[in-house]
Amino acid sequence: MKGAFITFEGCEGSGKSTQIRLMADFLRARGAEVTITREPGGTPLAERIRGLLMETCEETIAPLTELFLYEAARAQHVQQIVLPALQRGAIVLCDRFYDSTTVYQGVGRKLDPATVGLLNRLAAGAVRPMHTYVFDLPAAEGLRRAWERGSDDRMMQEAVTFHEAVREGFLALAQEEGDRITIVDASRPIEIIQEELRRHICGLPFMENR
Amino acid sequence: MKGAFITFEGCEGSGKSTQIRLMADFLRARGAEVTITREPGGTPLAERIRGLLMETCEETIAPLTELFLYEAARAQHVQQIVLPALQRGAIVLCDRFYDSTTVYQGVGRKLDPATVGLLNRLAAGAVRPMHTYVFDLPAAEGLRRAWERGSDDRMMQEAVTFHEAVREGFLALAQEEGDRITIVDASRPIEIIQEELRRHICGLPFMENR
Repeated sequence: MKGAFITFEGCEGSGKSTQIRLMADFLRARGAEVTITREPGGTPLAERIRGLLMETCEETIAPLTELFLYEAARAQHVQQIVLPALQRGAIVLCDRFYDSTTVYQGVGRKLDPATVGLLNRLAAGAVRPMHTYVFDLPAAEGLRRAWERGSDDRMMQEAVTFHEAVREGFLALAQEEGDRITIVDASRPIEIIQEELRRHICGLPFMENR
Repeated sequence: MKGAFITFEGCEGSGKSTQIRLMADFLRARGAEVTITREPGGTPLAERIRGLLMETCEETIAPLTELFLYEAARAQHVQQIVLPALQRGAIVLCDRFYDSTTVYQGVGRKLDPATVGLLNRLAAGAVRPMHTYVFDLPAAEGLRRAWERGSDDRMMQEAVTFHEAVREGFLALAQEEGDRITIVDASRPIEIIQEELRRHICGLPFMENR
């Protein structure tokens, strides 16, 4: 695979999507082919699975059902979008990937981490994030921002303690995989964060000559 | 679990649903609580997942995506419907369960059988079929019957060779697990089959005193 796969993680309201758009502008101006995508979603079928996951319905979704639905959306997205783009040599910027499943389902929902890891690897196949930015924000601040913009994510209904556990989960993951994961302080102004990201991304070994 | 979990497997058009309804009438007349259900489906969410699986859409569903969607529907169905019914002591008659996934995804789609088995056991949790009837029919005959009644199953678009491989898969599974699985010749008249099933089910050890 000639391309580069870069993922953006963190809580709702942490500004991932904005930073991805700005980063794509920057990389395209340098002549790169950039694919912006997201999980769950990225293909019509995966977006329909996202619909099942995001909507509030009267039936409680079992944590294991939720896990399988995320992995179904991921398998489809990887095979239809991410893998072909990487094989073309594109830079793929992805809003959430399997680290979100590790943290939301493994830490937040308390599913067995070994099971979550196994299904993550199965769904992702040969695709692994080459670098990951974790946007860090106090849980209450992320929730406030997400509410303000009217987020429809079902996860928003979870208590602040759930979102605090998720935040800690991301920070612990970043510590375990320090080479791959960079923590970004998401409480700062958009331009400051983007400047830092651009400087950092240009220094990644696999970004040389792009 | 005080209940009994009995599953009905086989190709489309093999008459499973009709036999399940007649069997439920018989068991209820004897005073048993009977739950009729099906996979994929059985809860509103699982039926919506079924919708994604059955519909023909322009996007090809990757075999792995399909597997994860079946397991998502199963996890929800087991936790919301099957397990509570078995805990109440009901007899649960289920139209398809994980043997269908073993055969359609493992044999038909040629996914790794070990992976399919692992996800089947994960989704089913503590629930295992106590007995299984495999309705056997030549593939072409099953397809003819299913077309005649206007089946909407996306699997119907597969070639006859796919359905022949599925049939062989069910027969091989029945040979491997002879104690649990009984093959039923589905080419015979409805009443003959039902009579055979009623006689057989009454002889199952866990059906004593029901």
